[in-house]
Amino acid sequence: MEAAITTLVTQFKTYAGKDGSSSTLSRDEFHNLVTSQLPNYVKNASDPKTIDQLMGSLDENNDGELTFCEFWQLIGKLASKEGGFCS
Amino acid sequence: MEAAITTLVTQFKTYAGKDGSSSTLSRDEFHNLVTSQLPNYVKNASDPKTIDQLMGSLDENNDGELTFCEFWQLIGKLASKEGGFCS
Repeated sequence: MEAAITTLVTQFKTYAGKDGSSSTLSRDEFHNLVTSQLPNYVKNASDPKTIDQLMGSLDENNDGELTFCEFWQLIGKLASKEGGFCS
Repeated sequence: MEAAITTLVTQFKTYAGKDGSSSTLSRDEFHNLVTSQLPNYVKNASDPKTIDQLMGSLDENNDGELTFCEFWQLIGKLASKEGGFCS
């Protein structure tokens, strides 16, 4: 499990580090991450509306950037769905 | 990232399925998971007090079982610490 956690952290940092703040995901960074890393988990990832809706639902303080904690909630929802724990 | 998420879900299910409810972790299952899978992330995992404290802090409805969502919050905290996002 530790290796899997490290992978998630490392990938987040890789995408978050591309522009602006290196510890948060901008909309473009988030878009890149979702289309590259979560192509099967997030449907219609190439549709800008999908990204806008996801981003809006996760960005709790509405600053246009996703922190690691905000991002983690998305991953948790995807994992939960993957595991059949909730619909 | 999808492979890493699948690993976390699969491991959770493996440990959760050992006794009682197959979708939640009992105290013993949680103890086994932490000592086997998170030996470096959770200090003093072999100390029963550590497990009791962690379990108490995560089990929001105090039913003695951890759901996947409750467990995910722990992993998020460990990942956040690992990534240096918070102390």
